[in-house]
Amino acid sequence: MSYPVGTTGVMVQQVERAAPEVIDALAACGVATVHEAMGRTGLLASYMRPIYPRAQVAGSAVTISAPPADNWMLHVAIEQVQPGDILMLAPTTPSDAGYFGDLLATLAVQRGCRGLVIDAGVPDVRDLTGKGFPVWSKAVCAQGTVKETLGAVNVPVICAGALVAPGDVIVADDDGVCVVPRDRAADVLAAAHARQAAEADKRARFEAGELGLDMYDMRGRLETQGLKYV
Amino acid sequence: MSYPVGTTGVMVQQVERAAPEVIDALAACGVATVHEAMGRTGLLASYMRPIYPRAQVAGSAVTISAPPADNWMLHVAIEQVQPGDILMLAPTTPSDAGYFGDLLATLAVQRGCRGLVIDAGVPDVRDLTGKGFPVWSKAVCAQGTVKETLGAVNVPVICAGALVAPGDVIVADDDGVCVVPRDRAADVLAAAHARQAAEADKRARFEAGELGLDMYDMRGRLETQGLKYV
Amino acid sequence: MSYPVGTTGVMVQQVERAAPEVIDALAACGVATVHEAMGRTGLLASYMRPIYPRAQVAGSAVTISAPPADNWMLHVAIEQVQPGDILMLAPTTPSDAGYFGDLLATLAVQRGCRGLVIDAGVPDVRDLTGKGFPVWSKAVCAQGTVKETLGAVNVPVICAGALVAPGDVIVADDDGVCVVPRDRAADVLAAAHARQAAEADKRARFEAGELGLDMYDMRGRLETQGLKYV
Amino acid sequence: MSYPVGTTGVMVQQVERAAPEVIDALAACGVATVHEAMGRTGLLASYMRPIYPRAQVAGSAVTISAPPADNWMLHVAIEQVQPGDILMLAPTTPSDAGYFGDLLATLAVQRGCRGLVIDAGVPDVRDLTGKGFPVWSKAVCAQGTVKETLGAVNVPVICAGALVAPGDVIVADDDGVCVVPRDRAADVLAAAHARQAAEADKRARFEAGELGLDMYDMRGRLETQGLKYV
Amino acid sequence: MSYPVGTTGVMVQQVERAAPEVIDALAACGVATVHEAMGRTGLLASYMRPIYPRAQVAGSAVTISAPPADNWMLHVAIEQVQPGDILMLAPTTPSDAGYFGDLLATLAVQRGCRGLVIDAGVPDVRDLTGKGFPVWSKAVCAQGTVKETLGAVNVPVICAGALVAPGDVIVADDDGVCVVPRDRAADVLAAAHARQAAEADKRARFEAGELGLDMYDMRGRLETQGLKYV
Amino acid sequence: MSYPVGTTGVMVQQVERAAPEVIDALAACGVATVHEAMGRTGLLASYMRPIYPRAQVAGSAVTISAPPADNWMLHVAIEQVQPGDILMLAPTTPSDAGYFGDLLATLAVQRGCRGLVIDAGVPDVRDLTGKGFPVWSKAVCAQGTVKETLGAVNVPVICAGALVAPGDVIVADDDGVCVVPRDRAADVLAAAHARQAAEADKRARFEAGELGLDMYDMRGRLETQGLKYV
Repeated sequence: MSYPVGTTGVMVQQVERAAPEVIDALAACGVATVHEAMGRTGLLASYMRPIYPRAQVAGSAVTISAPPADNWMLHVAIEQVQPGDILMLAPTTPSDAGYFGDLLATLAVQRGCRGLVIDAGVPDVRDLTGKGFPVWSKAVCAQGTVKETLGAVNVPVICAGALVAPGDVIVADDDGVCVVPRDRAADVLAAAHARQAAEADKRARFEAGELGLDMYDMRGRLETQGLKYV
Repeated sequence: MSYPVGTTGVMVQQVERAAPEVIDALAACGVATVHEAMGRTGLLASYMRPIYPRAQVAGSAVTISAPPADNWMLHVAIEQVQPGDILMLAPTTPSDAGYFGDLLATLAVQRGCRGLVIDAGVPDVRDLTGKGFPVWSKAVCAQGTVKETLGAVNVPVICAGALVAPGDVIVADDDGVCVVPRDRAADVLAAAHARQAAEADKRARFEAGELGLDMYDMRGRLETQGLKYV
Repeated sequence: MSYPVGTTGVMVQQVERAAPEVIDALAACGVATVHEAMGRTGLLASYMRPIYPRAQVAGSAVTISAPPADNWMLHVAIEQVQPGDILMLAPTTPSDAGYFGDLLATLAVQRGCRGLVIDAGVPDVRDLTGKGFPVWSKAVCAQGTVKETLGAVNVPVICAGALVAPGDVIVADDDGVCVVPRDRAADVLAAAHARQAAEADKRARFEAGELGLDMYDMRGRLETQGLKYV
Repeated sequence: MSYPVGTTGVMVQQVERAAPEVIDALAACGVATVHEAMGRTGLLASYMRPIYPRAQVAGSAVTISAPPADNWMLHVAIEQVQPGDILMLAPTTPSDAGYFGDLLATLAVQRGCRGLVIDAGVPDVRDLTGKGFPVWSKAVCAQGTVKETLGAVNVPVICAGALVAPGDVIVADDDGVCVVPRDRAADVLAAAHARQAAEADKRARFEAGELGLDMYDMRGRLETQGLKYV
Repeated sequence: MSYPVGTTGVMVQQVERAAPEVIDALAACGVATVHEAMGRTGLLASYMRPIYPRAQVAGSAVTISAPPADNWMLHVAIEQVQPGDILMLAPTTPSDAGYFGDLLATLAVQRGCRGLVIDAGVPDVRDLTGKGFPVWSKAVCAQGTVKETLGAVNVPVICAGALVAPGDVIVADDDGVCVVPRDRAADVLAAAHARQAAEADKRARFEAGELGLDMYDMRGRLETQGLKYV
Repeated sequence: MSYPVGTTGVMVQQVERAAPEVIDALAACGVATVHEAMGRTGLLASYMRPIYPRAQVAGSAVTISAPPADNWMLHVAIEQVQPGDILMLAPTTPSDAGYFGDLLATLAVQRGCRGLVIDAGVPDVRDLTGKGFPVWSKAVCAQGTVKETLGAVNVPVICAGALVAPGDVIVADDDGVCVVPRDRAADVLAAAHARQAAEADKRARFEAGELGLDMYDMRGRLETQGLKYV
């Protein structure tokens, strides 16, 4: 059974996940390649930035819809985390409050969580960096939160402009965050690998000094379109 | 005698400061803990970011109200700096100009200044990083400034959304900047230490895998509020 | 022959460049000094940030005007790159798409390109960092681009609020990006060196504890303007 | 058959629509009431503003996914418009270009289109106002567009932070834009009417001077939560 | 007894207000004149815009500190409103939710409230316009709010960058919003009237074609500063 | 003799202007048509908005480069205004201060000035609206300015992302602002008239229900590009 975006008051326990080896292979491909392999879709907005460089992960989304500056649902969600999951929080209205700090990260690490993607703020970035728990967020912010109002866990959410269903594969690295629908994960991986193979060939030719104008046979079309060399 | 926010043309020489050991202990607590200990108040807006990671300081505010792109009052203020102080500049209208570079930092370091918080821009970030002089700012920007129009020094200012009085304790780290009113500094420190003690216990329980749902006894209230597990 | 800003469909092959030794000496001066030496002009907007710290370069601008999310003209431009050049891309309407990634950087490096300044997005920042190819951009973003619509190469562009003509000298470091008109490059360098000499003297006096109030003889003018010490 | 968000190269001809009388009744309710009746969901981001005041409409969404500054798909979509429809355009990357002006509005009016919702720009606002064709947009902007790259028509899109499927009911007025999933339209209308009835009673009591504190019986809970009257 | 900015859980009943005739005279002066008469201080940030043009009011501030998307404190505050007051709401973290709509306006009007200033969103703008209840806000937004978490009423708040104490005089018109400290209201009014008198003379001279260069005797100083006429 | 962008300390008296009848005819065409007639160039950024609707003007630019929150150069510039001119102010660093109010407008009107375009703020919008003096600005803001630091008049400036030379033709209406280089004004007018003629024909065909798909013969190219009707 599927819930609409914006559902409140529901905690969905059953979530299908993609195969672990597919998830790990998507992590190795990285955001830019996976995004291209999906037909240039799935990216979260570019304001979502990692709190420290060089983290590169993938995991199954445990989705959270939460009121602004209220992290109650994070406590509900974390019970659902299985090793290899990534927490994904979308506030119901824009917020930069700090929902998730060092204490919650301690518990998340204990449960095998691979990271957090949050369209809001996060504090304790020095501690999170120290324990190697990666976060992609809209802001770094210590503003405290309350635990007063229900949201939902494991319903579809829109996070930083992207639709995320529970169990979708989240890929995140220095370039940002990309969402792969769970049932397309294997196909996307195959396309990503095909793209990597093609890029290896192109890279070799670029390293040898061949121009894109020639490699992609662009000169004729440029002339047709009317580009004038002066 | 106290001046209203926005006063111009005044340079206040007498500023009370908090006890040095309280200031240093607040620095050790860090922004997130101090902010919570103050009842979740005192934070500057989250766009205030450090120019380099892992600085963590506290000091007494020498406040500066300055016109946009005019750093004259910084020269006036720096004479008032005592060892352990932090310069805090709020422009009278929004500005991202670069008020304070390597030269002024040389003088600031010479006088024992611990850092700068500026709701505007700062240049020379490589040099400032090299000499370990931390700055929290709205922007990195080399735009030069003039010395033409009066502002004020050591009057209350609103900096990045927070009210700061001269002598207030500024705490700043990777999470941003927090202001502690001078006369509450000791109480806030006590509350911060209490919070740290409580967090140590929670951390141990989280590390052992206990859930927040159980630790905070949330399950009953979630049910009362109507959360449905499906 | 010179083209107006916004010209489309033109690829200008002949570009005069400043003397290499002048360019390299401007790089050594850095953005803040060069900007001051130009009478506080030439800066790009402060949202233009480097993808990794501590790069400091200068080069001759190969300018690109490109439609949003369309990187066709980059392929055209890269054929024009000579060793020591910097690519400078301005989109015709605001865009944060990722025009230039690791593959194009491979080719750019092969041709002796020193970096990219782009008022849009860039992906593959980990790879670019790894190969030491510096980029200053508005965003980090993996969003893919097409190759469908003409723009122009080596015509004047307005990039992040600054006018850039082909062959102008681009100086970029941790403080941002500055544009030096080609025919003023030698004069600006001389002014920058004069400024550095003057700053060395001031630095020594600041290190010795002399105040700007005294060094710049400001006290009288402050009094005239009405600053009250209280 | 349903397509994922971000699908490109597809033009879906078959779209189910809600009952016209339901759509018109939702228009009469207005955005704020419909949004509340949906459990406070469905709103587009608040930056979506009408080009002129006092328009209040509802219609069935003809969705358009289009590249930045490329309005080709609008021409494809407009053939699908039936009387009572609303065009809804989401760019594939952020854009403020002007996709839709007076000429296209002439055709849209001819086909019975009730308005346009576009997460980008719109020009010719004086003419559009003159002919009473309402638009909700992110920007007013004359920047011209090309017709070069495919997008999609009548696939699900994310527009200004809201998920919109073809045939969903769009409600728009001075308060912004709300999306009602087609299959919930009748239920939402019933809930909206119930809310209006309840509000009429409350309005009468407020007009008589009764306080919300008493009407909603809040005093006890305020005391329990610890509010101190001083 | 005075409370610090950010106090929570307190509802202050005793608020001193300025003299009604002073308040009304300040309204007649308007924001720009009052702001100048206060030495160019007191303005809220320029993103605070009226929901309809040509409202011009002044009143005594009933201040509200409220959590994001939680309007409970508005119900508490409205009981404190006396004829001639203006409600002034500052969220504890940035929010654009719609705290105050047509129903609450009905009650506010009943109690003689002159308007609302809110650093967040407001819905029902058509109805509010219809009943002539002016609002200055950061956004127009229908997003609903909850009533779950305490804030405070009639404590000092920072609203859109300005410090506001309960009982301060709020002046608002098409140019924005200005805050006059209660105990300075009479003096500011006198200065505003003096300014108006001076402006009447200047206006007559401008209408006669006299230049500011001559009226303010600027030519000598321009020459001294080095302006070259070429 | 021409000065570079960013020149300071210069007041250029001799400015060539386009023919009055060309200027007036460009005004009648409006921004969108003129922008298209220039090959989709010349637009200022879309954040530049009119302070009241339905103004539509064109005039010769008197350009002003001014420091942030310093309107001294406006007084210098206004002496240069000839009937039919438009004042165009670009701050040297971003500012939203209010440089130009009702008093200066009185003088501007007296001299035959047709309006103001300012990449900053403007106060007194009710009075300006009352006297029919149109302004396009980044903000409405009463923040006062000083008269302390030189800028320049009638040198090239970059205003809201567009290059403007003194004497260029400024066209402004509800859609924003467009700049036409003086020496291209007659050609642009001819192209604009040609475009209007072509649009009249298209409008008639759209009114008759002909689709753009047929009028522009797009169906074949859509099929070639791979659009699938499903």
